[in-house]
Amino acid sequence: MNLSHIEHIGIAVKNMNEVIKFYEEVLGLKCYAVEEVADQKVKTAFFQIGKTKIELLESTDPEGPIGKFIEKRGEGIHHIAYAAKDLESSLEELKSKSIKLIDEKPRKGAEGLHIAFLHPKATYGVLTELCEKPL
Amino acid sequence: MNLSHIEHIGIAVKNMNEVIKFYEEVLGLKCYAVEEVADQKVKTAFFQIGKTKIELLESTDPEGPIGKFIEKRGEGIHHIAYAAKDLESSLEELKSKSIKLIDEKPRKGAEGLHIAFLHPKATYGVLTELCEKPL
Repeated sequence: MNLSHIEHIGIAVKNMNEVIKFYEEVLGLKCYAVEEVADQKVKTAFFQIGKTKIELLESTDPEGPIGKFIEKRGEGIHHIAYAAKDLESSLEELKSKSIKLIDEKPRKGAEGLHIAFLHPKATYGVLTELCEKPL
Repeated sequence: MNLSHIEHIGIAVKNMNEVIKFYEEVLGLKCYAVEEVADQKVKTAFFQIGKTKIELLESTDPEGPIGKFIEKRGEGIHHIAYAAKDLESSLEELKSKSIKLIDEKPRKGAEGLHIAFLHPKATYGVLTELCEKPL
């Protein structure tokens, strides 16, 4: 497994516009993109800080993963995403170690990244994503 | 406010040795330090990835903040810490904007950093820390 840096931290929010305002006006970060990821039933907003992004996630459907997360736990940090140098071989390595995965194959995430989630039961409660920028 | 990067991500764990093994053997990160922070009633373990650290937090007392967090929410991501260029003036700025703080003045955290926490009620459920390396 070859992880280079924290690519992003996903944060579940109820009212994205209100939270964008907080990150911009209070923390001084700049929202550079807003994007809907239809199959995940979320709207996302991105801020860059160093090599890492803060990704705000607002549910577009109460039955989607972020809607359910907020219903159960409230707003807050949802996942950590590591930049992987070779996502496919990382997933093979995890499978060979019997690590439970949500995604056995890479799928397309926000910003055109290839992504895969590990199962939080395998990661001591931390929803963990690996992602790779396609060539 | 002048934040340069994510300094660390704090993760609450029940059994630090077991989780260190996961981060080393599965994610391929290397634990470079274990430190007890007595006044926070935690033992910490650090991994570096890019400019960011993963900080595992194991409670040394069920009545401490991590013990209570785990009792309420289970293991998982506890806080995000941003590296601030000037912590004292950042705190003054936050106070002038009426942002609720846990620490009105910097205090000493793990690794000799000066740190201060914002109140999660002010940060949409994300426990947020600012930290600065003293000169």
